[in-house]
Amino acid sequence: MTTIDLNSDLGESFGQWRLGDDDAMLKVVTSANVACGFHAGDPQTLLLTCVRATDQSVRIGAQVGYHDLAGFGRRFIDVEPADLTADIIYQIGALDGLAKSTRARVAYVKPHGALYNAIVHHTDQARAVVTAVRAYDDSLPVLGLPGSEFLREAEKVGLRTVTEAFADRAYTPEGTLVPRSHPGAVLHDPQEVAARVRRMVVDGVVEAVDGSLLPITAESVCVHGDTPAAVEMASQIWTVLDAEGITVEPFA
Amino acid sequence: MTTIDLNSDLGESFGQWRLGDDDAMLKVVTSANVACGFHAGDPQTLLLTCVRATDQSVRIGAQVGYHDLAGFGRRFIDVEPADLTADIIYQIGALDGLAKSTRARVAYVKPHGALYNAIVHHTDQARAVVTAVRAYDDSLPVLGLPGSEFLREAEKVGLRTVTEAFADRAYTPEGTLVPRSHPGAVLHDPQEVAARVRRMVVDGVVEAVDGSLLPITAESVCVHGDTPAAVEMASQIWTVLDAEGITVEPFA
Amino acid sequence: MTTIDLNSDLGESFGQWRLGDDDAMLKVVTSANVACGFHAGDPQTLLLTCVRATDQSVRIGAQVGYHDLAGFGRRFIDVEPADLTADIIYQIGALDGLAKSTRARVAYVKPHGALYNAIVHHTDQARAVVTAVRAYDDSLPVLGLPGSEFLREAEKVGLRTVTEAFADRAYTPEGTLVPRSHPGAVLHDPQEVAARVRRMVVDGVVEAVDGSLLPITAESVCVHGDTPAAVEMASQIWTVLDAEGITVEPFA
Amino acid sequence: MTTIDLNSDLGESFGQWRLGDDDAMLKVVTSANVACGFHAGDPQTLLLTCVRATDQSVRIGAQVGYHDLAGFGRRFIDVEPADLTADIIYQIGALDGLAKSTRARVAYVKPHGALYNAIVHHTDQARAVVTAVRAYDDSLPVLGLPGSEFLREAEKVGLRTVTEAFADRAYTPEGTLVPRSHPGAVLHDPQEVAARVRRMVVDGVVEAVDGSLLPITAESVCVHGDTPAAVEMASQIWTVLDAEGITVEPFA
Repeated sequence: MTTIDLNSDLGESFGQWRLGDDDAMLKVVTSANVACGFHAGDPQTLLLTCVRATDQSVRIGAQVGYHDLAGFGRRFIDVEPADLTADIIYQIGALDGLAKSTRARVAYVKPHGALYNAIVHHTDQARAVVTAVRAYDDSLPVLGLPGSEFLREAEKVGLRTVTEAFADRAYTPEGTLVPRSHPGAVLHDPQEVAARVRRMVVDGVVEAVDGSLLPITAESVCVHGDTPAAVEMASQIWTVLDAEGITVEPFA
Repeated sequence: MTTIDLNSDLGESFGQWRLGDDDAMLKVVTSANVACGFHAGDPQTLLLTCVRATDQSVRIGAQVGYHDLAGFGRRFIDVEPADLTADIIYQIGALDGLAKSTRARVAYVKPHGALYNAIVHHTDQARAVVTAVRAYDDSLPVLGLPGSEFLREAEKVGLRTVTEAFADRAYTPEGTLVPRSHPGAVLHDPQEVAARVRRMVVDGVVEAVDGSLLPITAESVCVHGDTPAAVEMASQIWTVLDAEGITVEPFA
Repeated sequence: MTTIDLNSDLGESFGQWRLGDDDAMLKVVTSANVACGFHAGDPQTLLLTCVRATDQSVRIGAQVGYHDLAGFGRRFIDVEPADLTADIIYQIGALDGLAKSTRARVAYVKPHGALYNAIVHHTDQARAVVTAVRAYDDSLPVLGLPGSEFLREAEKVGLRTVTEAFADRAYTPEGTLVPRSHPGAVLHDPQEVAARVRRMVVDGVVEAVDGSLLPITAESVCVHGDTPAAVEMASQIWTVLDAEGITVEPFA
Repeated sequence: MTTIDLNSDLGESFGQWRLGDDDAMLKVVTSANVACGFHAGDPQTLLLTCVRATDQSVRIGAQVGYHDLAGFGRRFIDVEPADLTADIIYQIGALDGLAKSTRARVAYVKPHGALYNAIVHHTDQARAVVTAVRAYDDSLPVLGLPGSEFLREAEKVGLRTVTEAFADRAYTPEGTLVPRSHPGAVLHDPQEVAARVRRMVVDGVVEAVDGSLLPITAESVCVHGDTPAAVEMASQIWTVLDAEGITVEPFA
């Protein structure tokens, strides 16, 4: 691989409540997963995030999730597939409308939090999200975990799928993310994180929590923006990848 | 006038809670003001309403409102104009996304409830709504009260404005709607309502609560769908207008 | 048994949206499971429901649920136990405040919908609800399914438990409720329902969907109030039980 | 005056979103206006705030507001008085339930944000809040602006009223607060703020934005907790008041 996309979750403030340093992150990522109002992001925050992403030439993705502000979309909800499909179209449309009004457009879709994790295995919800993206715009790529039901269902119906790795999250030996409630689920050391990303991109492997090496293929690497060290992490990743002759740029 | 548009508020159920007989109303109106989730309408309800409207060849409008489910959008909220603009774009985009996924599109915008009433006089909020529509799609017509700040601001920036009269609402001598909290604000007799509409369309006048006659120009007439007699009213209006040689069809 | 309590879910309207015929139901039940605003019930609806329940000498219970208006509390949410405990205390306190302002008090707690079903087996959430009730007022009885984790956990810490049967719901051979998404989950014929209740109370058995007879012990029988036939059902139950010399009255 | 109460708005985080340094503020105030979930404060946050307030021997007040998370309760909402009364009882009851479960109780009521400002003049809403407090517990004191309709209505029905001054807010010559949207509405310099408080408490005057001196009577002084300098401000106030021989302690 000679190029890699760097994505981050942005637009996750809500009203009076601020989260993350979006301006700083927009300088170091190539794709912005912008919240859509269901787990975070009031419309004004989302609009400003679209404006700033466009100013920085960062691509906008719709970060769709369960409707759960109190839980920040991090709690599984047993939504009926037909309801979930409508929820997802609603969110993509809302964000795309805000993007459009700033002369940009939603360029991809990435599920958030508990929905992201659920559709690794939950076929019905995975299919519901795929149905939504396809109904809205079947040319939109979807980001997801390699090997997930979500990407499998998306491929079946001809959606462009983009595999993703997580810079700052621990992996189980099965290749899924260690749940946030477990100690060590989130990595905090920028140097360590950058070294992991180098290994993912250059060698195609990541070390799981049990020390085993997992093969990993990723067109995009996610850095979370809600930790204080996020900007520093992203900078380190650029440095490390640059030394390997790898360009950070949007996925094709 | 030889043609008139008939519009109604639809898609106002929410989850388990049902409101109005949308299927019946879709057979008697030419334009459906579909809620956008802020005052009513969960995404699944909105999606189904779009499907049914399209099946009945009824045009879909975005019925945008304050974010207030508990108040059904009927309570004035002193939202900052910039926030209101973002709220409105979000709603139009969300509904347009759902409409698009059913091979239809949002064809116009009509503010709902307290927002509708506020922007008769509230210039800042009126301008905020106009800014939103224009930013989203400056070819979208807006429906509003004749003489309102809203239509005035819309005209200033070149939006297509559509004047509207209310079949089943009492008018003040100033040409605004008698607030719902007042007795007699909503008319219930289908015959009386149909006779009023005939007079509005044929003679261009409506009788205000003090007995005075107001000149009224309307390209569209609104019948509310949340009253039991709504379908009967709409049918009576068709009959009465048909007898005058006036065709009920979408505004140009 | 010579007495039985009859309970029903009430106060489940929300703002403009009406659900159930609470006034009629209050004449035929002895305990009202009043919603607490998380799955249904705006404060004004809840206040009026408390007033009317008190007028009819019907006891008020707090019907606590997941925070999910769009799903009416009928979707499982994977809430952390500590968060769930706080959510439940909040709801009991809110309803008790409204009850208190009408010179009544919350007299028991009954979980609603997906929470009710989850805590039949989900020990952590069951314990979280028990912790909440105990922290709020350890003299409050809890209603639940016989054999559930919820009642087991409640008994462990000394809460008064009240077993409940469902008049109008089909049972699995394991004694749990057939999920609402399955055909035949809800019974609609008042005569059939009344006959089932007679059998539950007099013979201590209920027929499951596979025809097998389950032993059932219930101090209270639930009739749902959101179906048109609910009032008729409750009346039939009174008639049938009266013929057996069984008095409908609040549980001790 | 030889004693003064110091109050601050606390418990205003929501889910993932943190606001203010509550632990630090609890060390420097004597009364905590704890949010009630309508403008801020998820139940778990509120419960923990009650626990910590009790640990620090800080009194708990119910900070009631409009139901508007996106607007943080800072936007006027034209709620019907009867609805507002129910909303307020609901909030007090919910917080009191959480407090009670930590062996504390709600000891007073203070309206928040736009509601606080509205009921300086809006008699119907002022009366609605008073009705709510009285119905819940007529021994609860209410905090408000001296000369406001709110305190006037409260006095009429015999509620204990506590007058309040704002340490870090600019005053109009009429004695109301300069709206937050105006430049200079919020003071940031701890020394200046402490000097103003000294003058309020010792001399009974405050300087308005036009330089005029207003007489002011306050039993309690509010310091906001959502600014970085809040803790420093409160410390300075203690120092300055201590030098004057004035004790900071809860109002009687």
